Amino acid sequence: MRERLAERLRLYVVTDRGLSRGRSEEEVVRAAVAGGATAIQLRGKDWSGRDLVAVGRKLRAITREAGVLFFVNDRVDVALAVEADGVHLGQEDLPLPDARRIMGPEPLIGITVQDEHQAREAEAGGADYLGTSAVFPTTTKVSGVPPLGLEVLEAIARAVRIPVVAIGGIGPHNAAEAVRRGAAGVAVVSAVVAAEDVTRAARELRAAVDAALAGRG
Amino acid sequence: MRERLAERLRLYVVTDRGLSRGRSEEEVVRAAVAGGATAIQLRGKDWSGRDLVAVGRKLRAITREAGVLFFVNDRVDVALAVEADGVHLGQEDLPLPDARRIMGPEPLIGITVQDEHQAREAEAGGADYLGTSAVFPTTTKVSGVPPLGLEVLEAIARAVRIPVVAIGGIGPHNAAEAVRRGAAGVAVVSAVVAAEDVTRAARELRAAVDAALAGRG
Repeated sequence: MRERLAERLRLYVVTDRGLSRGRSEEEVVRAAVAGGATAIQLRGKDWSGRDLVAVGRKLRAITREAGVLFFVNDRVDVALAVEADGVHLGQEDLPLPDARRIMGPEPLIGITVQDEHQAREAEAGGADYLGTSAVFPTTTKVSGVPPLGLEVLEAIARAVRIPVVAIGGIGPHNAAEAVRRGAAGVAVVSAVVAAEDVTRAARELRAAVDAALAGRG
Repeated sequence: MRERLAERLRLYVVTDRGLSRGRSEEEVVRAAVAGGATAIQLRGKDWSGRDLVAVGRKLRAITREAGVLFFVNDRVDVALAVEADGVHLGQEDLPLPDARRIMGPEPLIGITVQDEHQAREAEAGGADYLGTSAVFPTTTKVSGVPPLGLEVLEAIARAVRIPVVAIGGIGPHNAAEAVRRGAAGVAVVSAVVAAEDVTRAARELRAAVDAALAGRG
């Protein structure tokens, strides 16, 4: 699963029920996958374990059929229950060593980092990929952390060998810039799940990432 | 660990930071254990995974030293991370079969039930013990479920072979009645953690349970 992981992180779509215009996670994810999403993350911060498992199973089936990576945010137990490819953990979630011990060596673990120090620590601890704190200003997730900016993104990407996915305020207008600064791909919430045409929004983002990667050589 | 499980569920104290008068979980748990608590559950509904693991490790050390059972509410991953004796799951938490598959055969799993049907289902699914929905009126946990009353408690206890722990509005005045109706023990939150003298509150409850069990023969 680690083979060519970077390529499978080009367009990483994170679910958000509140932003989905009343559409279900399945509907949004099917449409995003049709537009070229390469990875999906189920995120439901206030959801019960039961709801996460129920929706997670559906997304696991869709992503498996499409050959798309599937991650669960925060909950290692839910990720294991639905046989996700891995889990994505923030700095307030289960510590990486505990998650790795519980999950075993196979599943992927992504860690959110906001600087080079956290990036190196996560890589040393066995993270498979990194997500950044918001690179650009965003209203989706209020974290209290100011946007990192492109220079910090670049510093993080240079600091580690594992793929780095840029997140936060990313759309077709700036996805290429994130890739030029070293990101393997971009993670988005509202730019895809809140779009009127989810497939088209995903397709445009994917095209921007692919073009920037081709240009990077 | 399943040997004599019922005896180890006589006085089951559930933590609640908001009710603890500013005392830490460790302080409350040490005092409760000194008063005869036989099982402790860490419950922190809105806590981050990181905080649950940090406090859980401390409670695991205290309970291990005291030979007291230690459970984590809701989060199977946290229970595994801190090497708790088991997890306690409500009907909205991870489904029992998933929890068992993730945890393996060894850890204990307790399930909250509100009627005989759920009780039989949980036992058939491999639950090790049951907790009831609130038997008496309580202000600690607003569940929307009306109090079960003693007759439903009795029906649940008769319906299964695994131990049943009565919870909800239980204090020294009615703990004995719950035991006479078939409960192996009582679970409490505020009756112990909100008490001015936690050790004394635990001691009184434990004495009431022990006396009722002796009388039940």
